[in-house]
Amino acid sequence: MKRITLLLAAVVILAYADDSAAPLFVTKIPAGYRDWKWISVSHEAGKLNSIGAVLGNDVAIKAFREKTLPYPDGTIIAALHYGHDPSAENNKVFGQAQSFVPGAPTNIQFMVKDSTKYAATGGWGFATFVDGKPAPAASMKGCFPCHNQAKASDLVFTHYAP
Amino acid sequence: MKRITLLLAAVVILAYADDSAAPLFVTKIPAGYRDWKWISVSHEAGKLNSIGAVLGNDVAIKAFREKTLPYPDGTIIAALHYGHDPSAENNKVFGQAQSFVPGAPTNIQFMVKDSTKYAATGGWGFATFVDGKPAPAASMKGCFPCHNQAKASDLVFTHYAP
Repeated sequence: MKRITLLLAAVVILAYADDSAAPLFVTKIPAGYRDWKWISVSHEAGKLNSIGAVLGNDVAIKAFREKTLPYPDGTIIAALHYGHDPSAENNKVFGQAQSFVPGAPTNIQFMVKDSTKYAATGGWGFATFVDGKPAPAASMKGCFPCHNQAKASDLVFTHYAP
Repeated sequence: MKRITLLLAAVVILAYADDSAAPLFVTKIPAGYRDWKWISVSHEAGKLNSIGAVLGNDVAIKAFREKTLPYPDGTIIAALHYGHDPSAENNKVFGQAQSFVPGAPTNIQFMVKDSTKYAATGGWGFATFVDGKPAPAASMKGCFPCHNQAKASDLVFTHYAP
């Protein structure tokens, strides 16, 4: 009996320790994100070789346009990434290889602001979805330390394109 | 008196000939375009060296999503172009030169579908605005012949990014 009690206590402590230490990630795709307004685009060369768009929900768009910092709770930013593919179709018309367009989707990433829930990661919940499924938590460990280098803009790299 | 009548007739004929021959361009920026939904992105290398986003009004978005061809009257497609600039800020965090983001805006282009008004140019009115002002008509002569090479997609090069 004593052994069982100790074991239970250990399980409870471990569970608690795990909850408070591990960052929380967003595991559900925010509804309606494909209808959100456009913030900016980016092209990552090198290994990523991606092109993508950054969209924001209404709270995000208002904050970007009014340069509100920190971003208010409720802000959600979506980054839709695709392969950076040459467009044979466009290049034929241009008469030269110059045009790059989205290829197959690579992932969709989100940053969800909830300063209480995600206090351990600067108030932001991070998410990566590949084929609609959340990426393994192990692959998400780099999100916060990397974004945390953009402290001056509340961990957001993207600027609003006029 | 006879000479004046002839002169007037000549002026009327010239004006008529000019109206029917010159393509009509869109000269007013469609209201609210920066709030439209996102269709896709593109990067043009070479001389253009641009990165941009293509947005659409509700008629356009519905047509893109439902693959409606030809695009219905009322469709407006906006292409917002910027310099394809390296981001020193992002590259510092990545530890390598890989990130390209929108630099200064270069132009905003529109395609407005009105199969009656723009019948001479495939039903599309073309527009280029630089710093909010319409580009000279002479610079717009290439729009239709170039887009006309994309007849299979009703003169629209851009595909909807999922």
